[in-house]
Amino acid sequence: MTTQQRIEERLTAEVIASFANTPDPRLKELLESLTRHLHAFIREVRLTEQEWTRAIEFLTAVGHITDDKRQEFILLSDVLGASMQTIAVNNEAYGDATEATVFGPFFVEESPLVGNGGDIAAGASGTRCLVEGSVRDTDGNPVPGARIEVWEADEDGFYDVQYADGRVAGRGHLFSDADGGFSFWGTTPTPYPIPHDGPVGELLAAAKRSPMRAAHLHFMVSANGFRTLVTHIFVEGDPQLEVGDAVFGVKESLVKRFAEQPGDEPWTRTRFDVVLAPQR
Amino acid sequence: MTTQQRIEERLTAEVIASFANTPDPRLKELLESLTRHLHAFIREVRLTEQEWTRAIEFLTAVGHITDDKRQEFILLSDVLGASMQTIAVNNEAYGDATEATVFGPFFVEESPLVGNGGDIAAGASGTRCLVEGSVRDTDGNPVPGARIEVWEADEDGFYDVQYADGRVAGRGHLFSDADGGFSFWGTTPTPYPIPHDGPVGELLAAAKRSPMRAAHLHFMVSANGFRTLVTHIFVEGDPQLEVGDAVFGVKESLVKRFAEQPGDEPWTRTRFDVVLAPQR
Repeated sequence: MTTQQRIEERLTAEVIASFANTPDPRLKELLESLTRHLHAFIREVRLTEQEWTRAIEFLTAVGHITDDKRQEFILLSDVLGASMQTIAVNNEAYGDATEATVFGPFFVEESPLVGNGGDIAAGASGTRCLVEGSVRDTDGNPVPGARIEVWEADEDGFYDVQYADGRVAGRGHLFSDADGGFSFWGTTPTPYPIPHDGPVGELLAAAKRSPMRAAHLHFMVSANGFRTLVTHIFVEGDPQLEVGDAVFGVKESLVKRFAEQPGDEPWTRTRFDVVLAPQR
Repeated sequence: MTTQQRIEERLTAEVIASFANTPDPRLKELLESLTRHLHAFIREVRLTEQEWTRAIEFLTAVGHITDDKRQEFILLSDVLGASMQTIAVNNEAYGDATEATVFGPFFVEESPLVGNGGDIAAGASGTRCLVEGSVRDTDGNPVPGARIEVWEADEDGFYDVQYADGRVAGRGHLFSDADGGFSFWGTTPTPYPIPHDGPVGELLAAAKRSPMRAAHLHFMVSANGFRTLVTHIFVEGDPQLEVGDAVFGVKESLVKRFAEQPGDEPWTRTRFDVVLAPQR
């Protein structure tokens, strides 16, 4: 080992040692690991002082655009895949349980109860879509009474809460029936961009990355004794699936066919069979 | 490898691949390495969704306290040793060249020229101190005409720029003489805290870490053909050296004896022989 390597390693060890008296053992573990990885990054790339300054300026800009309505740190976590990696480690693969994906900022508590076969669109613009499916456990047994929350953007790429008029549209909840089945009417999802007029948008532009999310319909499925599933379904054939989802939410198992149905007012039909993992 | 490990690694690979078209090769390298280390951290600690949320809230608070006068992101980088590690990789060990340390936020351009043997205290409170030294290259040859910038806090722990009255005190510059020698009068350094009434202060408190910096006197030494040296000298016997410097700036080679000189008005005397590395 060179003198220089020894100096750098000794510094990392010194910082880790500074956390030795942290009373909360989990906080201690997090700070020690963060220090190790942060220092490893700086050492690996030989970060210049100019780049360090630019990083401070970038984080400052992310902090300053963030307010009650705009959360640029979450966007940053999303576009670096940190949000999705956190989802991954908290939803370990279990048998054929449905894969989880990002929660996103647009869920609202106390959505309308629409009941099986009901309409969650409630006037949201878009091509009507019938979603049918079931909720089962990993042994294939139906899970009746599971609470199914669904929410989605309209054809213009906006969720109801992004409008100033207080509308409630494109969201609702229902419960699986005695056989675990469910169905509801919504709209066919379309792609939309994440907010990209801030520093995270600049980062995406500098990397020539698309700010678009692949078209998706959000689900949160919960039932007693099961791990709550937060996921989306995606639309087979959506060109954005090739380009890449800005937040890395896509899993192949979540891409579904939205079969086009002809008629005066064309509509689509899809199926989503949910498998819940047991509670840890 | 388990299915779960495969899922997590595939995600990291997907995020790295998303930077493939970044036109600037250095930015591409930085983003790829950052992604690898950030994901490794999340996977290693099995970051919970609650902890992720807490991290977002923490960064948001750091962003919101930061303004033109308060830079909490720099403080965060400092207390995690990231600033000092950046200094380390940018000032590689070279022969017996003097070690570098953190620059800090209190340097000011166009400090007064005090000349050799002059006084930089200019009325700053504290025990008077005579600093004598020399500037040499790594072969031991004197470096005449090196510009020596010095700055320090007063006995109350404040730099001149932290007062509202526009005073200029505890800072100045001089040049090494024909033999590389220099000397000036200042004040004996005393410990002071970094700003710790914000989220970084909360972090230090949660880790039971001291917010104090070890007593120090700042130097920046530059000369044609040499790497500019940004460093401090520290005070032998300062109890804070045992407790630990909040920003990890201390190097054993930079701890100097400030010999107490008796008299009606006691003063101290120290020596700092600077060795400059050649320009890269």
